[in-house]
Amino acid sequence: MPKKVDHIGIAVKSIDETLPFYLNHLKLELLGIEEVSTQKVRVAFLKIGESKLELLEPMSEESPIANYIAKRGEGLHHVALAVDNIELRLNELKEQGVRLIHEQPVKGAANASVAFLHPKSAHGVLYEYCEKK
Amino acid sequence: MPKKVDHIGIAVKSIDETLPFYLNHLKLELLGIEEVSTQKVRVAFLKIGESKLELLEPMSEESPIANYIAKRGEGLHHVALAVDNIELRLNELKEQGVRLIHEQPVKGAANASVAFLHPKSAHGVLYEYCEKK
Repeated sequence: MPKKVDHIGIAVKSIDETLPFYLNHLKLELLGIEEVSTQKVRVAFLKIGESKLELLEPMSEESPIANYIAKRGEGLHHVALAVDNIELRLNELKEQGVRLIHEQPVKGAANASVAFLHPKSAHGVLYEYCEKK
Repeated sequence: MPKKVDHIGIAVKSIDETLPFYLNHLKLELLGIEEVSTQKVRVAFLKIGESKLELLEPMSEESPIANYIAKRGEGLHHVALAVDNIELRLNELKEQGVRLIHEQPVKGAANASVAFLHPKSAHGVLYEYCEKK
């Protein structure tokens, strides 16, 4: 079963414009910024307890995040749950009839193996499973 | 500064219809169900590491959650951050020019003192500060 909230993904138009809110008002600690080219996003991680907030900025109009912001505006995008044995967990979900966006894990930020569940199976929430190697 | 993600609030039409996904597929543990009459919601808490998922079901059409679901559908609603000295933290934010929905804490689920920040000040995310007494 999932062990913790690994991170909460938040769609933003611009990390540079959003970071001051998180650093100066919420007073969270910036862990780092990286680019995830497979998802065409720039990502900033902020530490909060055992979890992180992940600010997702689209690097191109074809990024799923650009699409999301165009449809729904900036805001909460997904919740990533830390799991062990991600392949096994995905197979279990598939056998149970849960719709998956990724049936096999893909490479995510911080070199994790990640897979998204389909929000249609999760009552509108986009969940990610995430395994750190 | 906030210590952890206390919970992630998720708007659902029906807790009864949603719980099987969380219990049977995500395999999370149900901590309890309660009614928060001030917010006109029924709430189910699921444990995940040091945090919780909070399923929010509207008990009336006037509930802010009913309104949310009508506009945006079921899904991620808010993120609650655990803080100490909530009154002090709210005053700091106000002095910094951050818009607040509650300038004074109100009573939330599990008898916590809670206050919502305005999403206009938070790039589209609805944040709650939450202090357990």
